[in-house]
Amino acid sequence: MKIAVVRDILDANERIARENRRLFDRKGLLVMNLMSSPGAGKTSLLEQTIEALGGDLRLGVIEGDIQSSKDAERIARRGVQVVQINTGGACHLDGNMIRDALDALDLDRMDLLVVENVGNLVCPAEFHVGEDFKAMILSVTEGEDKPAKYPLMFRESKVLVINKIDLLPYLDCSVEQIREEALKVNPELVLFEVSCKTGEGLDRWMDWLKEAARARRPPLE
Amino acid sequence: MKIAVVRDILDANERIARENRRLFDRKGLLVMNLMSSPGAGKTSLLEQTIEALGGDLRLGVIEGDIQSSKDAERIARRGVQVVQINTGGACHLDGNMIRDALDALDLDRMDLLVVENVGNLVCPAEFHVGEDFKAMILSVTEGEDKPAKYPLMFRESKVLVINKIDLLPYLDCSVEQIREEALKVNPELVLFEVSCKTGEGLDRWMDWLKEAARARRPPLE
Repeated sequence: MKIAVVRDILDANERIARENRRLFDRKGLLVMNLMSSPGAGKTSLLEQTIEALGGDLRLGVIEGDIQSSKDAERIARRGVQVVQINTGGACHLDGNMIRDALDALDLDRMDLLVVENVGNLVCPAEFHVGEDFKAMILSVTEGEDKPAKYPLMFRESKVLVINKIDLLPYLDCSVEQIREEALKVNPELVLFEVSCKTGEGLDRWMDWLKEAARARRPPLE
Repeated sequence: MKIAVVRDILDANERIARENRRLFDRKGLLVMNLMSSPGAGKTSLLEQTIEALGGDLRLGVIEGDIQSSKDAERIARRGVQVVQINTGGACHLDGNMIRDALDALDLDRMDLLVVENVGNLVCPAEFHVGEDFKAMILSVTEGEDKPAKYPLMFRESKVLVINKIDLLPYLDCSVEQIREEALKVNPELVLFEVSCKTGEGLDRWMDWLKEAARARRPPLE
């Protein structure tokens, strides 16, 4: 009975996510669903990305938080289109929330839309919102055991950004072991090692993202 | 309709949590529900606590993880009673899971039972398991904005342990501001600032916990 209810919710979500996806297809818009634990650096990575790619790509952001509009305020200061969703308790974003938020965005003036999910290493991985791909961030401060303990998110993600590598000298943590454990769960993962604080490693991320947005655009007529 | 379903689940959970609680009352057992984001240091705090209090208190641990038994293995090495719950996808522990796990523990040889919840700053706060109190850990690496963004967990917790203070020199993070933001959400919070790595600040935590377990014991007849 309980399983049936959950299944209904997921099915309804899939339907709406597919509708969102069709809209993104028509617009030739690259949509990334960005997920991580609280405080792993989603908004910081976004700030750096807007800074670096703002001249090449027109970015838009949907900010998901249970409460507060702190993140949307940080993003708005960078001069890109942004909408804040407050889930009012819910632990993840779903297709319906994204559909509602799209009304407030001009998709014709956008190349890359980033959906910053609620900080949670579990639930967001279960819900598509119509994205092209999911990307996740893991902070090195979280330790090497996270892929084995939270496998779904690592499995659902196309990209893993390992953040805060500037802190490695002060931690008992091996970034090689994080890579190894993550690839055990998902051998297809595209991996980046970065510090949003010092900027280390971000060039490769920017190049990859620019190329992904370019490939998404409809061919010129 | 959707809300009604959620309400039913929470009501059913409350009933089972109350049954668990009555059992703990009969045993004079202090039960702490320990919550945090992934990698904030729940198992490390437990290892330190077992090390420091093992002579004074008989500890037991229920480990909650979506998958893997890594944490239970770490705890078992310390020679205390431990059970691993694998939720198989679920993002939190509930009363029913705890009731099942209790069958594998001898509560008559125990003064303090710690329920280590799934690493998640959202969902575990919604489900009682029969505990005396909830305690949460926030790592300083997660930043000062977490109380405003995840208010329920801060509101539901009696205790906030701020961990990894050894990393403060390498972060743009103010522990005073974390305290301030947390107390804005829940002025009753009992606060600790610790480093499970260096041991700093742990004495106060141990004294507080020992006193709480002492107060919970039934008066001698």
